[in-house]
Amino acid sequence: MSYIEELQQLLTPKQVSTNETTLEQHGRDEGYHPLSLPDAVVFPASTEDVQKVVAFANERRIPLIPFGLGTSLEGHVIPYQGGISLDLSLMNKVLDVRPQDFLVKVQPGLTRTQLNKELKKHGLFFSVDPGADATLGGMAATNASGTTSVKYGIMRDQVKDLEVVLPDGKVIHTGGMAAKSSSGLHLNGLIVGSEGTLGVITELTLQVYGIPEAIMAGRATFPTVQAAVDAVTMIRTSGISIARMELVDARSIQQVNKINELHYAERPTLFLEFHGNEAGLKQDVAFAQEIVNDFGCEELQFELDTKAQAQLWEVRHNLAYAFIHGSPGRKMMVTDVSVPLTELAGAIQDTRAAIEKEGLDGAVLGHVGDGNYHALFMIDMKDEEEVARAKRLNEHIVHYALARGGTCTGEHGVGVGKAIYQRQEHGAAFEVMKAIKTALDPNGIMNPGKIFID
Amino acid sequence: MSYIEELQQLLTPKQVSTNETTLEQHGRDEGYHPLSLPDAVVFPASTEDVQKVVAFANERRIPLIPFGLGTSLEGHVIPYQGGISLDLSLMNKVLDVRPQDFLVKVQPGLTRTQLNKELKKHGLFFSVDPGADATLGGMAATNASGTTSVKYGIMRDQVKDLEVVLPDGKVIHTGGMAAKSSSGLHLNGLIVGSEGTLGVITELTLQVYGIPEAIMAGRATFPTVQAAVDAVTMIRTSGISIARMELVDARSIQQVNKINELHYAERPTLFLEFHGNEAGLKQDVAFAQEIVNDFGCEELQFELDTKAQAQLWEVRHNLAYAFIHGSPGRKMMVTDVSVPLTELAGAIQDTRAAIEKEGLDGAVLGHVGDGNYHALFMIDMKDEEEVARAKRLNEHIVHYALARGGTCTGEHGVGVGKAIYQRQEHGAAFEVMKAIKTALDPNGIMNPGKIFID
Repeated sequence: MSYIEELQQLLTPKQVSTNETTLEQHGRDEGYHPLSLPDAVVFPASTEDVQKVVAFANERRIPLIPFGLGTSLEGHVIPYQGGISLDLSLMNKVLDVRPQDFLVKVQPGLTRTQLNKELKKHGLFFSVDPGADATLGGMAATNASGTTSVKYGIMRDQVKDLEVVLPDGKVIHTGGMAAKSSSGLHLNGLIVGSEGTLGVITELTLQVYGIPEAIMAGRATFPTVQAAVDAVTMIRTSGISIARMELVDARSIQQVNKINELHYAERPTLFLEFHGNEAGLKQDVAFAQEIVNDFGCEELQFELDTKAQAQLWEVRHNLAYAFIHGSPGRKMMVTDVSVPLTELAGAIQDTRAAIEKEGLDGAVLGHVGDGNYHALFMIDMKDEEEVARAKRLNEHIVHYALARGGTCTGEHGVGVGKAIYQRQEHGAAFEVMKAIKTALDPNGIMNPGKIFID
Repeated sequence: MSYIEELQQLLTPKQVSTNETTLEQHGRDEGYHPLSLPDAVVFPASTEDVQKVVAFANERRIPLIPFGLGTSLEGHVIPYQGGISLDLSLMNKVLDVRPQDFLVKVQPGLTRTQLNKELKKHGLFFSVDPGADATLGGMAATNASGTTSVKYGIMRDQVKDLEVVLPDGKVIHTGGMAAKSSSGLHLNGLIVGSEGTLGVITELTLQVYGIPEAIMAGRATFPTVQAAVDAVTMIRTSGISIARMELVDARSIQQVNKINELHYAERPTLFLEFHGNEAGLKQDVAFAQEIVNDFGCEELQFELDTKAQAQLWEVRHNLAYAFIHGSPGRKMMVTDVSVPLTELAGAIQDTRAAIEKEGLDGAVLGHVGDGNYHALFMIDMKDEEEVARAKRLNEHIVHYALARGGTCTGEHGVGVGKAIYQRQEHGAAFEVMKAIKTALDPNGIMNPGKIFID
């Protein structure tokens, strides 16, 4: 009897698939990393199911890769050593909403859009907003963030408790429902961002927020990237309560115009959003207007109604797709670094110059309030020489960020794409991370080949 | 040659003290836990000094206890197994202020008041505000918080990077200068709150904030604790940007009046503080006023000028001292739990009833925006029966919090006092914590007898 047949007996036959299409769906993510198929895809329906599969895999030394929706960008979920892809899509319930505690308990297969639909009924929202409509389990696994983290924080900041199935099949809780705790070692923060290398997240207790009284969004264009970043720094220094501040470079606006038939000025552009009470917002927006004008803002447009605001953010969020649609037959390579705010303008300019030097085309954009930006380029994966140029460019951008106290990934995570930079970024601390990995997963079954490759 | 003489040769003779007064100063903290002397107190002047001492202690299996200012409350720094108390007071410099990156780099022996004095020159402040003027290294070790965490977060939220000397003498950095990162396992969060059981913090990079444009502080009294907590919950739900919300119960106000010759109404009282821009603050304060009135507020007083505000917070911060001064010959036992906000009023009322049932006297007060509160009682440590009652009361309060999804310590940390509750609170996760402790400190030299006692 094959191990797949044994798995079918352990759960039910229909929870274990070897259908070719299903294997392929679980052999890739949304990045450029090559396909690699799992032996089987398993669909647990409960924590008990997960325990059974994990204990089985651990006993047999079979690689096990937790899978949400496959929206990762650095090959996190690709089973390069085969084994079991553990698809958590059946575990997608909202288990409990506690509005007065600002807490919600959910299963890992729920997406952030589904959660926000439920929370809206209570006047609440979940803040973390990456581009993709990822699952909350996946967002915790990669420590996702996105446009709103400058005000509300990243995924790690929202996680109050995780139920985790460890490689030996035991279930732990990493936190609790108190708003804060100084009890014991902080396992919440350790599991968040561990990318399925330490265990399987089967339940999340997350912090949520009241929907703000007033929201205002706007768009400001600048003559140079430096001017835009200087304005961002000044807005942050001034204490303005800004919820989103996104930079999109001129080449990217050009592509957005082309694909969406828009006529935005093709200049470095800030997309801004303010949250607060009516009176405070008015003062903040007026102050921000003064600041952007001081830094040579050429065009400034605020959107007051919800629909126009939604359209504005649609443009920002669809930027990657504008390049994908505009580059048939090519794969998107996106890199994601974060640097101290004072290094941001220099880093973005260096990246743009490096893109041109390598003769590639692409966007530079980012969550500039956090010093986090992405460079995105469309690659013909069959053209080895072009792939080599793209990899050299990626490496250049990462080295630049690391040399300035930054990180090789601000939000996308390590997966396979950034694993080669772990030792360079973390130095001796990488040995500590490996010691923790070995202590928790001595047989190395959990998502092997990710983060810890040497 | 004794190991102390060897240490004197390893550093310099004056950096190693066995002076009786010095030993006694390092044999206690500000809590009720009994004195226990170290063999010697060592004063490193650099990371290299720390490396030498740690490697020496590890080779000889000598207990090593990092020591800041000894303001802990649960016996964290008391050397119950003798060994070396590593006093970091010589390492107390501000190394770098980067105003536009909102970062500061400091040594662990610097206190938060010293840091804020330096930051004020740049229009910045460091937000974490426990009662004591603790060192920043100690605050990171215990994951301190205090009155402002409802808006700015706890110590763990401020730490961007730590330099840590591990038990084998190696130096690691746990993070970087980027505002966010998804690179590797999150060691920042793991070291913060580890109470010197994993290594010695020798440098901290911390997030700081711009001083807000406007601050308003006030005091509101209520007929019942329930009414005060209901007002707190509604203020939080309404999205008001409140920076501090402290509850002090009627008995505590009585003691404050007595010691400070004040005439505050002896009722459950909220101390509130709002940070924001002028216009936003005005709207927030007006809204908060409506809310507290809706919940039966009896007396409401706002302070506009800085001096009156400082006096208001002086009263709140000196509350523990009001009990200490009023109870000569007694030791303060303070317990510190945190519960979900919806459980807070019930928990505080249960605590007050339990204090009375045990025939003890004391205060109930807390950072109620976080669901975190303290019960504080003055104990005659020579009266065994009274000590037993106090311990029973402490245990009752902890069990009540744990049964409702809370934590045995919201901010004071585990030390020896809360170590007995670790298994109950964390269950199987406690084994994971112990595995991490063993992986990092296989010889168990780092602050033995704290957190991990069974």
